[in-house]
Amino acid sequence: MKIKTLSAAIAMTTAMSAGLFAVSSLDNPAQAQEETYSWKMVTSWPKNFPGVGQGPERLAELVDQMSDGRLTIEVFGAGQLVPGFEVFDAVSEGTAEMGHSASYYWKGKAPAAQFFAAVPFGMNAQEMNAWLHFGGGMELWNELYDDFGVDVLVAGASGVQMGGWYNKEINSVDDLDGLKMRMPGLGGEVMSRMGVAIVNMPGGEIFTSLQSGAIDATEWIGPYNDLAFGLHQAADYYYYPGWHEPTVMFEAIVNEEAMAELPADLQAILKTAVRDVNANVLDEYTARNNDALETLVNEHDVELRRIPDDVLAQAREHSEDVVAELAESSDMATRIYESYREFQEKVENYHAISEQAYYNARNPEGDTTE
Amino acid sequence: MKIKTLSAAIAMTTAMSAGLFAVSSLDNPAQAQEETYSWKMVTSWPKNFPGVGQGPERLAELVDQMSDGRLTIEVFGAGQLVPGFEVFDAVSEGTAEMGHSASYYWKGKAPAAQFFAAVPFGMNAQEMNAWLHFGGGMELWNELYDDFGVDVLVAGASGVQMGGWYNKEINSVDDLDGLKMRMPGLGGEVMSRMGVAIVNMPGGEIFTSLQSGAIDATEWIGPYNDLAFGLHQAADYYYYPGWHEPTVMFEAIVNEEAMAELPADLQAILKTAVRDVNANVLDEYTARNNDALETLVNEHDVELRRIPDDVLAQAREHSEDVVAELAESSDMATRIYESYREFQEKVENYHAISEQAYYNARNPEGDTTE
Repeated sequence: MKIKTLSAAIAMTTAMSAGLFAVSSLDNPAQAQEETYSWKMVTSWPKNFPGVGQGPERLAELVDQMSDGRLTIEVFGAGQLVPGFEVFDAVSEGTAEMGHSASYYWKGKAPAAQFFAAVPFGMNAQEMNAWLHFGGGMELWNELYDDFGVDVLVAGASGVQMGGWYNKEINSVDDLDGLKMRMPGLGGEVMSRMGVAIVNMPGGEIFTSLQSGAIDATEWIGPYNDLAFGLHQAADYYYYPGWHEPTVMFEAIVNEEAMAELPADLQAILKTAVRDVNANVLDEYTARNNDALETLVNEHDVELRRIPDDVLAQAREHSEDVVAELAESSDMATRIYESYREFQEKVENYHAISEQAYYNARNPEGDTTE
Repeated sequence: MKIKTLSAAIAMTTAMSAGLFAVSSLDNPAQAQEETYSWKMVTSWPKNFPGVGQGPERLAELVDQMSDGRLTIEVFGAGQLVPGFEVFDAVSEGTAEMGHSASYYWKGKAPAAQFFAAVPFGMNAQEMNAWLHFGGGMELWNELYDDFGVDVLVAGASGVQMGGWYNKEINSVDDLDGLKMRMPGLGGEVMSRMGVAIVNMPGGEIFTSLQSGAIDATEWIGPYNDLAFGLHQAADYYYYPGWHEPTVMFEAIVNEEAMAELPADLQAILKTAVRDVNANVLDEYTARNNDALETLVNEHDVELRRIPDDVLAQAREHSEDVVAELAESSDMATRIYESYREFQEKVENYHAISEQAYYNARNPEGDTTE
């Protein structure tokens, strides 16, 4: 008798002696615990990328510890197993059991996916988490991905991003006319309606393009990642706030069949680990951005500039149009938009008298670095 | 041969056949997995209290799922096993393996504990989480509790609270003179320096005292909990923002010996479940406070009032004094204060150009309910 069979027999005896009747070995938790699972996780970030790239590493570590090695996850950087923009396909097709990415990359497959990543003048990280977990957001997101055989969990936030690096001062909307800027997604569409010539390029080409003058401006992420990219060496002005990305929410996607094969305890372990990572990525950004901002301003003499009021006001109006147009792209997009907008209206009212009012009471002058 | 002994023997054989030599049964993960642990968790909230009281329930459920029943936690409301204010002692002495509470309740034992719950004009939930997890806060908190044989994990946040319910309008600091108000902790000390007569009482007496005129004002939590308490039936004006509690952080405390007895995988499961709960409590408050605020304003005609600028300015000054005095209470308090203050200065600078600037760009008018 093999060890495994003997062990199952003992477990069966235990179950029966406790008055339980195990119908098949599938019902037997003791046997289920013997199975081990080796998963691949593909990501859209370079391996160990600061901030967001730490999310998948932590996820794998937590799952390994909690499952005592029963579920191990090997993390692949962008391009190591599949290119960064093919993460969704790889998970959908089962090439990898899971992935870590951001949903706006899949707008070609499902335009409505953009609502779950970043919406210009939309909700920030705390608000998104409340909508996703208590406002029906996660249910809609999973419904959207259902057609692709993919389960989704929210897995990290950047917090409010920076407005971007500019090689010239922006004093009014007129100064945007003809400006060549790298800004992807919905924010880029808004900027193009204000006269900006939007140029798209991968992250790796940004620095050289900005330095050579091929572009006049670019957005990236925030102080921590921007400092690491050296963008302060290629542009003089650092504008805020990042109205185009009040946060990016990252995603952990899981092949539906792979998820279904896991026993209930490993599913719970995976989901809880992702929830930990979701918080931890934001905590890391919040902490590291402080230090990086100090370095940029004090050591590299970067000039911080607030985006002028008229630019913000026009960007807000165009954003409403752009988002409303996205909402018309499908019935599903309409439903997501309505849920998103209804929640935002309420949370904006509440945060006006809580988080926003508190920030302004604590620091009435706002930015004092100018 | 008993099942357990037989099973251990099999596991031993397995380990040896894999080329491993188990020195003792303690080194044998297969046997460790057979042990089950039944814990008690005492809390400072009524059982199933909305918001914060859901935290311990969720914690117990997640741990049960992830451990497949190997670690079960029975949750006790305040007074069911020990009174709400004796949670810390119960965990320290091992009467219960763990507890869910807030650290400012233990200021009689360790005044510095207040830094980890709520600091007037201090950090909000996102900032506290960044300090605790990436700024050295958790290490200091654990060092503080080490003398009591207690491990601590942060386990929930309320978000920015409301300023409180008042039976008269406050138009300047002069209107505070002689006002009888229930406000515990550091915020109460600040208010008393502005002429307020601070009255302390348990939560259960607040409603009656406010309605009878025994007190003129009270703070409680935020719209969700305040509506449930019916405070809108006892006072006319609802002031904001809650400068005295820019968040409360809740805590999960664990008896050190009980923690040490858990195998590594169960320790990881417990810690990760707490991290989930930490985020989930804030997400729930953020979502439910919106709806409750709408109900209070639209259905109960509650009048929202912003705390006047001169009151906020004086409260800010007194808060600095009160917190600095707390910092002098012990060497440990000084170290915690310095870490807290240094982190706050940096994160305040960063949030001035990110979260704060974004709120103001999105909603330039602020509160529009007035």
